[in-house]
Amino acid sequence: VKHYAFFVSAIVAIAGLLIFTVPAPGHADEATAAAPYVTEMPQGYRDYQWVSSAHEAGNLNSLGAVLGNDIAMKAYREGKYPFPDGTIIAALHYKNVPSDENNKIFGKVQSFVPGAPTNIQFMIKNSSRYAATGGWGFGFFENGKPVAAASMKSCYPCHEKATDTDMVFTRYAP
Amino acid sequence: VKHYAFFVSAIVAIAGLLIFTVPAPGHADEATAAAPYVTEMPQGYRDYQWVSSAHEAGNLNSLGAVLGNDIAMKAYREGKYPFPDGTIIAALHYKNVPSDENNKIFGKVQSFVPGAPTNIQFMIKNSSRYAATGGWGFGFFENGKPVAAASMKSCYPCHEKATDTDMVFTRYAP
Repeated sequence: VKHYAFFVSAIVAIAGLLIFTVPAPGHADEATAAAPYVTEMPQGYRDYQWVSSAHEAGNLNSLGAVLGNDIAMKAYREGKYPFPDGTIIAALHYKNVPSDENNKIFGKVQSFVPGAPTNIQFMIKNSSRYAATGGWGFGFFENGKPVAAASMKSCYPCHEKATDTDMVFTRYAP
Repeated sequence: VKHYAFFVSAIVAIAGLLIFTVPAPGHADEATAAAPYVTEMPQGYRDYQWVSSAHEAGNLNSLGAVLGNDIAMKAYREGKYPFPDGTIIAALHYKNVPSDENNKIFGKVQSFVPGAPTNIQFMIKNSSRYAATGGWGFGFFENGKPVAAASMKSCYPCHEKATDTDMVFTRYAP
């Protein structure tokens, strides 16, 4: 049964990732209707401090960073789970591309950098508002607009599996 | 002649990188003696804002981030070169490692994250103090200690080639 559960969860996770890679136009109305997703980008998120970097291999081929607001950073640095209400975590994703200008200087294909932005994802902790999804509101933005709610349905079932870290995949880089 | 010059510069760059990958014990005395390198880590650099992430393939196999102090971020966001005096740019490097806990959930080896910290490099702009190296002071730290001055000699000749961006390789990720 355990193996079967893991298999199902893996399928769900992969399906979620496949959905994420399909460009979905932003439909704010849809997104706000059914489930309480995050449909507005938190102001000032680009000024948040750096939690860690992340590279996703394979089809996603993504390079990016996870940033956190002050509440998130405090919790991360104290190593305290679960994250308190008010936590905002932002994942900024870009195409993972070789830097031609750097590699010309290095004399080989060595430097990979963020290329075109692909999407920005948010997790916002609010135990009452997002009670149905473990206290976390999930947001998924392309070109500054929320994607269709259907595309955000897969966030929670996948994040839910990160049981050791209050559903947050990214750990703090010292 | 142009080709020859590029070939020589490539060799210098590669040699520099090879030197960087050799673990060098910290010798603060050596480092402070000869050239004006940065031999003390700027306080509070971990709280700087995020400029961009970076992945170095090959032997370095590094994943990290570049952070900037307020002066650096302002210049980056205004797209103004050269960077003004007071600019501090920090490059935090880690081993690029697969995240077993994430990949177990994803069902494939997809997620790569910063592993053990390898080194932290700084560039500090001070046109008078670092006049001999284009106004930039270079610093290279392992375990919080500056590496031997010999290992820092290769910073400038390589960075100097990034002529379009005031010797800074990393561009701002929007």
